[in-house]
This record gives sequence, C-alpha cells and structure tokens, in this order.
Amino acid sequence: IINGWKTMERVAARAWEMGMADPRKIVFSAKMGLALVLISLLIFLKEPFKDMGRYCVWAILTVVVVFEFSIGATLSKGFNRGLGTLSAGGLALAMAELSEWAGEWEEAIIVLSIFIVGFCATYAKLYPTMKAYEYGFRVFLITYCFITVSGYRTGEFIHTATNRFLFIALGAAVSLGVNMCIYPIWAGEDLHNLVAKNFMGVAKSLEGVVNNYLNCIEYERVPSKILVYQASDDPVYSGYRSAVESTSQEDTLMGFAVWEPPHGHYKTLKYPWKNYVKVSGALRHCAFMVMALHGCILSEIQAPPEKRQVFRHELQRVGSEGAKLLRELGNKVKKMEKLGRADILYEVHEAAEQLQMKIDKKSYLLVNSEGWEIGNRPREAGHDPHDLLDMGDQRKFLQHKSLSEAVLDLRAVHIGKNWDDICPDFVPSGPIGSNLTANTSENNRSERQPSWLGHVSFKAGDAVAVLTEAESKTYESASALSLATFTSLLIEFVARLQNLVDSFEELGEVAKFKDPLEQQAPI
Amino acid sequence: IINGWKTMERVAARAWEMGMADPRKIVFSAKMGLALVLISLLIFLKEPFKDMGRYCVWAILTVVVVFEFSIGATLSKGFNRGLGTLSAGGLALAMAELSEWAGEWEEAIIVLSIFIVGFCATYAKLYPTMKAYEYGFRVFLITYCFITVSGYRTGEFIHTATNRFLFIALGAAVSLGVNMCIYPIWAGEDLHNLVAKNFMGVAKSLEGVVNNYLNCIEYERVPSKILVYQASDDPVYSGYRSAVESTSQEDTLMGFAVWEPPHGHYKTLKYPWKNYVKVSGALRHCAFMVMALHGCILSEIQAPPEKRQVFRHELQRVGSEGAKLLRELGNKVKKMEKLGRADILYEVHEAAEQLQMKIDKKSYLLVNSEGWEIGNRPREAGHDPHDLLDMGDQRKFLQHKSLSEAVLDLRAVHIGKNWDDICPDFVPSGPIGSNLTANTSENNRSERQPSWLGHVSFKAGDAVAVLTEAESKTYESASALSLATFTSLLIEFVARLQNLVDSFEELGEVAKFKDPLEQQAPI
Repeated sequence: IINGWKTMERVAARAWEMGMADPRKIVFSAKMGLALVLISLLIFLKEPFKDMGRYCVWAILTVVVVFEFSIGATLSKGFNRGLGTLSAGGLALAMAELSEWAGEWEEAIIVLSIFIVGFCATYAKLYPTMKAYEYGFRVFLITYCFITVSGYRTGEFIHTATNRFLFIALGAAVSLGVNMCIYPIWAGEDLHNLVAKNFMGVAKSLEGVVNNYLNCIEYERVPSKILVYQASDDPVYSGYRSAVESTSQEDTLMGFAVWEPPHGHYKTLKYPWKNYVKVSGALRHCAFMVMALHGCILSEIQAPPEKRQVFRHELQRVGSEGAKLLRELGNKVKKMEKLGRADILYEVHEAAEQLQMKIDKKSYLLVNSEGWEIGNRPREAGHDPHDLLDMGDQRKFLQHKSLSEAVLDLRAVHIGKNWDDICPDFVPSGPIGSNLTANTSENNRSERQPSWLGHVSFKAGDAVAVLTEAESKTYESASALSLATFTSLLIEFVARLQNLVDSFEELGEVAKFKDPLEQQAPI
Repeated sequence: IINGWKTMERVAARAWEMGMADPRKIVFSAKMGLALVLISLLIFLKEPFKDMGRYCVWAILTVVVVFEFSIGATLSKGFNRGLGTLSAGGLALAMAELSEWAGEWEEAIIVLSIFIVGFCATYAKLYPTMKAYEYGFRVFLITYCFITVSGYRTGEFIHTATNRFLFIALGAAVSLGVNMCIYPIWAGEDLHNLVAKNFMGVAKSLEGVVNNYLNCIEYERVPSKILVYQASDDPVYSGYRSAVESTSQEDTLMGFAVWEPPHGHYKTLKYPWKNYVKVSGALRHCAFMVMALHGCILSEIQAPPEKRQVFRHELQRVGSEGAKLLRELGNKVKKMEKLGRADILYEVHEAAEQLQMKIDKKSYLLVNSEGWEIGNRPREAGHDPHDLLDMGDQRKFLQHKSLSEAVLDLRAVHIGKNWDDICPDFVPSGPIGSNLTANTSENNRSERQPSWLGHVSFKAGDAVAVLTEAESKTYESASALSLATFTSLLIEFVARLQNLVDSFEELGEVAKFKDPLEQQAPI
C-alpha cells in the first residue's frame, strides 16, 4: 500500500510538472471534459426522440474523435468526418435503390458493393497525397457499411443516414464551439514559436561549439547517443539536433495551420505558413554546418591547442557574430518584424573575412612541411612566440561514459610530437623524456580501445610502439588540417547565412511583417 | 466529359503504378474488403439476436479502425481498444452502482463523473510516454460516455457494456484473423528493409559526391530545395537525405514491430528491433559526414580542379572503398549475416591512410604561401607538372535553376588568378589577358547575385573590380583550403565507420545472425 501511495505521489508530481510546463494542456483537458458534459446533457434532455439511445453514440464518438489539441486539427478532422459521412451516405442510398431493383440478388449486390467500396477506399487511402484525408476515408467506410447493413435490416436507409448525419453534426458543433470559443489553441502559433525556438537552439549550439573548440574541451568518450543520433542532454548537441529533427513536427503543424481561420497576429487569409517552414529549412541548412563543426570536436583527430589559440580571436568573433545574427533573426521572427535598413550580415561577413585573412597569413600553421617533397618550409617554431601560447592546462575533458566511440585515436601521438617540436619548454624532461611520454600514453590508449592504427601495428607483427617516424608525422599533419577544416566549415556556415536571410526576407514580405522603420517614424 | 474521362485515365494510371511499385497495397486493400464482407455476413446471418441493429455498428467500427497495414499496428490497436473498452466498462458499471445509491443526485453525479473522467483521460493522453496508448484513451472515453449515457436511459448498464464488448471482440477477431492469416504484412520486415535501403542510399551518395568532386561537377545554381532541406531528385542528395530523414519512420515501425510475434526470419521472442534502429543511427552519423562532403560541392568556394587531380587516385579509392563497405554491410543486414573473420575495415582504412600520407607529402598544395608572414615557401609551380593536369575542359555545370543560392562567389577570381599562377600555359592570351578574363567574369558574376564581397566593394565606393591583390589572394587560399576540408571530412567519415561496424556487430550478436564461416564449413 505504501508503494502504491508513493507511485501515486510520483505520478501526481509528474502531472503537475507537465501542467506547469505547458498550462494549455490543463485548459485543453478541461475543455474536453466540458464538451463531453454538454453532449451528455443534450442527450439527457432531448427525451422526445425515441431513437436517441441508438444514435447518441454518434454524437459522443464525434466529440471524442474530433476534439483535437489545436483548432486546425479539429477543423481538419471535422471536415474529414463531415465529408466522409455525407459522401458515404449518398453512395449508400444510391446503392440501396440499386439493390432493391435487383430483386432476389439483393444480398449478393450488397455484399459485393461492400467489398468494392472497402477495396477502393483503402487503396485510395494508401496513395501518398491522400494521407491528409486518411481519416475521411475511414469515416467513409464506417458510414457506408453501417448504413448499408442496418438499412438492410430495418429497411430504413434514409432514416438511418439522416439521423446519423444529424448526430454527427451535433457532436461536431459542440466540439467546435467549445474548442474555438474557450481559450483556443492555434497550431499556427505553435509553428511560429517552434521556428523561433529553432533559431535560438542553433545559436546556442554555434556558440557552444566555437567555445568548446577554442577551450579544447574534448569528449574523453563520445556519448554513444550522439554516435547513433539519439536525443542526448549535451547542450551543444541538443540545440542543433532539435532544429534538425523538427521537420516532421513542422509539417504536421503546417498541415493543421492551413485549416485555421485568420486570428491574432495572422490576419491575412491564406497566411503563408509554408514560408515559416521554408525559413526553418534554410536554418536547418545552416544547422548542418554547425553539426559538421561539432563533428570536429567529436573527432579523434584534434588540432593542437596552441595552434587554435592563434586564431582564437577571429574564430570567437565569427562564432559570436553568427550567434548574434541568428538570435536577432529569431527575435524578428518571433516579433514578426522586418529587417532594418542596415545590412544585418555586415558584421558577420566582416568577421569571416578577417578570419580568412588571418588564415591566409598563417596558413603555414595548418600544414606540416616536414614531409614535403619540394623541401621544407622555413621553420616557424619560435617565430611568433606570443601566438603559440602554452594551452596545456586548458585541456579539459568532459566526463562521459559510453562503450562505443570513434577510433581515430591519435591524440597521444601528436601531443607528444607536436608539443615537443613547437613548445620545447613545455615538457620539462626534454626531448628524450617527451618521446617516452608519447610512447607510454600510446600504450595506455591502445589498451582502451581498438586503434585506428590497429592493422598497421598488426602488420608489423608487434602490437605497440610500432609508430614509425613517418606515420606519426602523417598524423601530425592530419591534426593540423583539422583546424583548417574547422575554419572553412565555419566560413561555409557564414556563407549559408545569406540564404537564411533571403528566405527570412521573403517571409517578411509575404507575411506582411511590421517594418521597424515605419514604427519609429512618429517618434 | 472528355476532360473527366482523361482525369479518370490519369487516376487509374497512377493507381496502377502504385500497385506495381508495392503489390502489398493491393493485397491489403483486398483483405480490408474481405474483412468488411465477413463482418457484414455475420451480422446478416445472426438474425436471432434482437439488438443486432443497435450494436452491429461496434463490430463494423472495430474492423475499420483496427485493420491496419502491418500486423504490429493491428495488434497494438486491437490491444488498445480491448483494454480501453474493458477498463471503461468496469468503471462505468462501478459508477452506475454509485449513482443509484445517490438517489436524487444521480444526474449530477453522472455529469460530474463524465467531466472528471474526460479531464483525466485527456490529460494523461498528453503525457509524452503515453503517446503509444493515445488510441486506448480515446476508446476509454467513448466507451465510458456511451455506457453511462445509454445505460442511464435504458437502465441496462450491464447489458449495454457486455454487448458492446462482445461486438468489439467479434470485430477484432475478424480483422485479426483476416489480417494475420492471409498474406501478413510485418512492420518488422519493413524496418529491416528500410535499414538495408539506407545503407545503399548513403553508399550511392558517397560515390556520387566523390566522383562529382573529382570531375569538378558544380551546381551552376544550387537547387533551392536543397537550401531549405526539402526533398529533391538530385541523386546524390536524395541518397543521404532519405537516410537522415527516416528517424520518425523507423521509430513508428519499431513501435509496431515490438508487438509482432516471432515470425519468418525473426524467430526469437523479444527480437532486438531496437538494435536495427541503433545501426541506422550509426549509419546516420556517417551520413552527416557525406552531407558535409556534399556541402563542399554546394559551396561557392571551390578548390581549383588541377589541385583536386593531384589527389584523384587516393580520394577515389577512399570513396569507392567506403561505398563498398557500406554496400557490404547493407547486404549483410539484409541477409542477416555476421561479418566474416577478415577485418572488413582493412581496405578502407588502408585507403584513408594513403590519402593521409599523400596529403602530408603535398600539403603545400593546400595553402597559399604568398601571404605568409614568415616568408614564401619554395615555388612549387612546375615542380610536379604531371600532377597539375589541366582540367579546364572537365569543369561541368549541372543545370539547375533556382532563385536563391549561397553567395560566396569567388570562383571567377580564383580561376583567373590560380590558373594563371600555376598553369601559365592554360590561358592562351598570357598574363594580361588572363587578368582581363578574371575581371570580366567577376563583372558577370556580380550581376548575377549579391556577392560575398558586396560590402567590401561598397566600402570602397565603387561596385566592381575593387578586388585588391591582397583580397583576391585571400580567396585563393580559401579555395585551396576547401580541398583540405574535403579530404579531412572524408577521413572523418572513414573514422566514423568503425562505430558503424561496432553497432552492426552488436546487432549481429543479439539478433543471432548467421555466421558465414559456419555455413561454409560443411563444404
């Protein structure tokens, strides 16, 4: 009993939480209760009709089925139900006439017609573009069979059909009335908020990715949920994931929103909901770049921290300007404002250009000249010492446990080699000591997981410490190129913003957003 | 009339096409017709019962509602319906007892109970984890209201409740019988095929991306559908898009598949459908890299073709080995075979390593040394002339029309500059002529669309031809880095394959796939 009580308590707590998170759910449930009470009262009161008990079920059924969370869904279901009932009723009556003429073949014709109607309606329902009317086809089938069967038994086809239709209309009227008059919940508003929320999510992810990258925060073990693309509570990941994942939700909401009459802020007939989805799609196109940037953090090939610091200022600026732009656009979507006259992309393009220029000047940092066939580049170590900060103590590892993870495990190698090359003063024990470190950590790591180098080691016959000079250099250069990848992905992200701004402007035009300049004019 | 006839013809043609593409849809529709005929016949024949006409609607309704495409969906809906009816019936009977004791407050208690039940059931339905039972809650509500209302009118609570339940059971029995005994359609099988299909799609995209990249096939205008992430018939795009987009479909299928009894190849109880979804998730994680690779083709910053040719052999090999691996895994998923003893990743890792080594040797091609602060690299032009093939005639443009596109339009600039630098013999009119070319095409392009350089030009006061030497060099280096990005994304893709193979092996273990070695043993 105590257990049961505790379970009850937990359930109540969760229900309370859900209600607090979205009070509309409480309102909706109360509305549903109210609609049911109303329809029951109507049935109680209207004693005069004799067939009430037989048909009242239709009214109740309609209320329960048609009463959906949003107005758009309610209208669309109500329409489907009405159309399905009407057309099936008409067909059933026609078929009844036909079967009466047929005389003794009446039963055969009825059964055959049921089969044909069942086949056609089901087949049509499966056609992709008919998916929105799926419910209508169901109602059609139910109505046709019901009227035919019960009409055959009682001989009162028309009576059955009209009664059924009247009760369905009654139920639909009650549910539409209650749902639309008391605290209506609009699918369009949900869609609008969802799109604005996606902007914020991607902005948060972008900032998170750039900051984590610069602070060399790595995943000691990549969360296995990310590896199989499931929802995870990693803030950077969840931000863009929800934007990427919202496609089907947006489509559903749009399907309902187009049914809704003009209301609130959405005053025009045929409001361009499609453009909200389009803006969200353009945002998704940008979000994929954020996802690729996050991939650079998830990857086992990591650029050496001191090289990242060289571009710290520029990367940071692009990241924060990009996030600022996304937030501003998100706010403008939310407030339904057009862009101002100033070029919203100016700052972020400027930042990206600076990053590009810096890369151009320092691109020797992105490659490893030791292996060049055409001779070495001038040695850069010590050239620009204030750029090559020792970031060793800033390497943080996020604590994550999982069994699976990516396997390009070269960190140990390039840490040892690179730091030795570039920051000779970092490893106190000098070159020989640092080589030792590299080998030891290689040992530790190769126990932890099958290494990318696994089959190379296997070939050499001995499992550990078979990294030849040439191989370790190869991975060094891979790690430096990883920085080049990060920056060019970031620049590509900036390039994609133009497309986002374009589709936002299109939305602003067709949805008649407010012009911030006109508003300020009277002041 | 002729128009109507043509429409009919078109509809028939489409219906025929759909039937040919998936004959199961025809079978399913026929099954539905059969089930309806059976239930109608039962109602015709069982004349003895006097209340038939009143209750037969429940049987028809159950058939139409419960009869779903796959067995899993049918079972899950049938279970929901049964449970909802039973529990609501019990509650309604208890409430009837209670209201009889209440005497004159009977009506008030009934109405109040309807409100409370309606509120609670609706609220519970909205809780996320309850979503699978949404239909059950609806049935619960309908049943409760119906029994209470019609029981109150006739005073026959128990009679109503049992009759309703019997007819629902009859309908459920007919639909389950027909659906499961005649050509059953399993959701699990669909899930299995979907996962295998996704492998093929990603493999096709990967090959396409690498080939297009090497053959310098570009989008003259990026299809606007890609920019807003809608379905498009671009083969490279549709391959990975369907793998990325199938999340919700997989979840739905899995939700049904867990209801299905062991059947066909899936013989164990509690078959691990979850692992299929997990493998698909790991594949999706790889597909995101293919998507990022495709982004390199969509981007306006393009690596010069002659540099791509340097790495042609290695890139091609990684691409084709990666696609081969994906196809092999896809086939093994399809045939439900475990991996052989050989390391399936060996070839692709080897290929990636060669690519990495080549990059290490030639990384001077990936950067532009002219802007280095530390002095120029040794001049590479002419060093390795057979590598720097003139690929000018291989530049193909895909014909695509759209109004929006990404804007980093630097192609014209780097084509002119780079080819001039590296292949002086390519532009016949010599250095001055080639500078002209660069400027002219810059003019043409800046008319076509707002350029990435737009605001820089604006600052300088004159719209065109304000590219200073320094700026055009900056973009040259960006274009070279784009090649670096492509290769490191490709290598990251290879790294992610390990995770995919791991989750495939896990699936093979828990789902007891055949071992190809054991099968060959008797030979």
